Amino acid sequence: MGRITARRRVTRIRTGAEPTTRADVLAVEEPLEIRVGGSPLAVTMRTPGDDVELAAGFLVSEGVLTSAEDLRTARYCAGATDEGVNTYNVLDVAIADHIAPLAPDVTRNFLTTSACGLCGKASIDTVVTRSAFTSADDDLVVDSATMLSLPARLRDGQAVFDKTGGLHAAALFDGHTGEMLVLREDVGRHNAVDKVIGWALVRDLLPLRGHILQVSGRASFELVQKAAMAGLPMLSAVSAPSSLAADLADERGITLLGFVRDDSLVVYTRPDRVTVSGPPARASDGETPRPGHRSA
Amino acid sequence: MGRITARRRVTRIRTGAEPTTRADVLAVEEPLEIRVGGSPLAVTMRTPGDDVELAAGFLVSEGVLTSAEDLRTARYCAGATDEGVNTYNVLDVAIADHIAPLAPDVTRNFLTTSACGLCGKASIDTVVTRSAFTSADDDLVVDSATMLSLPARLRDGQAVFDKTGGLHAAALFDGHTGEMLVLREDVGRHNAVDKVIGWALVRDLLPLRGHILQVSGRASFELVQKAAMAGLPMLSAVSAPSSLAADLADERGITLLGFVRDDSLVVYTRPDRVTVSGPPARASDGETPRPGHRSA
Repeated sequence: MGRITARRRVTRIRTGAEPTTRADVLAVEEPLEIRVGGSPLAVTMRTPGDDVELAAGFLVSEGVLTSAEDLRTARYCAGATDEGVNTYNVLDVAIADHIAPLAPDVTRNFLTTSACGLCGKASIDTVVTRSAFTSADDDLVVDSATMLSLPARLRDGQAVFDKTGGLHAAALFDGHTGEMLVLREDVGRHNAVDKVIGWALVRDLLPLRGHILQVSGRASFELVQKAAMAGLPMLSAVSAPSSLAADLADERGITLLGFVRDDSLVVYTRPDRVTVSGPPARASDGETPRPGHRSA
Repeated sequence: MGRITARRRVTRIRTGAEPTTRADVLAVEEPLEIRVGGSPLAVTMRTPGDDVELAAGFLVSEGVLTSAEDLRTARYCAGATDEGVNTYNVLDVAIADHIAPLAPDVTRNFLTTSACGLCGKASIDTVVTRSAFTSADDDLVVDSATMLSLPARLRDGQAVFDKTGGLHAAALFDGHTGEMLVLREDVGRHNAVDKVIGWALVRDLLPLRGHILQVSGRASFELVQKAAMAGLPMLSAVSAPSSLAADLADERGITLLGFVRDDSLVVYTRPDRVTVSGPPARASDGETPRPGHRSA
């Protein structure tokens, strides 16, 4: 796993001091070509590691895989360079025979959506990938104190960010117990999410009913799309969502939270899944405590 | 330009207080399909506005355009929905006759690179797009105090970020005068950079010798690639670069700066272009002041 970080010589300049030259640790970024049955399907710039789960999650996001039995094998292609060296940057996925072959227009769709892009049609109805799962009827309810605790727990788990300052992260939480199940880091936020969803796919945990996906940074349309494809009822972002992220979350019945920071958060859609934790203990104020795992 | 932001009803929850429901302002995210001569080439999720410059910058990044005369016209396609409504999300670019038609494999390349992706080959030599310009021999030299001032000037210019907290930004500075020439915001950092480069293309300012590109957030391989295609000698990021960003900047002779914050910065490549500004005025310390537009 030495390829997650790389050392480079850098010059640090500080006002009023002599420049210093030293080795610094950078987050590794390399291309991963995902092939299905030998045919190139998509390329993503990612941080190496958990590539099989990344590819699996990508194929869940694109509507190809929904259960562990859909994925037969995944192996790195030998001979990826002219000299026959395995670069570990080309991964070939074999999908089960019961999965329909990918149609040519689906292949085109892969190439564009891996671009954080979608076809040029106007309506959400026509641009989103159909999910095999529904999030709208998930009866998960989480108190606000638990939601407010997730960004710090995500941050605490970011081992590589600590070294490089250069990685996004995504983590999956059990919404009922609050337990963190898996955390993944990557130079691309969409990759970190795909790694988490792929982790769940290979353990046959889809749909992720009753679970929460917490991401660093912002929430784009693409991330809500991935949450919908995995059957997640809640997506929480440290920063702002986009308009289309909120629109899709609304349509799919996903609770979308943003600006989850310190002692406040914003719920953009389906606020019925978030209860307000009681105030800091003030026994004399006569209010009835609201439900919550703990008071903040 | 009302489509840059959108209002949505949100619920704000603060520990120990009643939830409040109010209208909030979100950054708009919508797909833009870029067509060349009527053929779909790429789709990007972007914040509407400056779409022609976005498309122009994208085509510079992909090696299709290098001067203003290469771009004939760009127009939104009418009838983008079944009902014939212009969505302003499909832009058709006409390129000059002297530009060679795009080969099919080039088209495939567009689809993958718009994915922040590249072909699966191992060597930088084989994955990068060839630039018509060189950055390595640019004799720009900038003092560290000027470089340290750019992030705040970028942030000060982010009108939409102030409302939404949800946009990346890129700005172009004249490296000799320090003047900010243009600033663009977008939900996608690569789009913000394409808008800046497209702004320069239509004004026939390429190559951008002697200029500095300052971006919010991190520096990926893709952003260094775009800087190289525009002939820029310096790329400065508020946060960390990736390993491949530093490797490509090194190969192309681009000065790459990261963690440009407060009173310090890190130079990853070509540090000869950054001089150290003198210390805060301490006339008695006997040091010879180093060159600089100003002392920090």
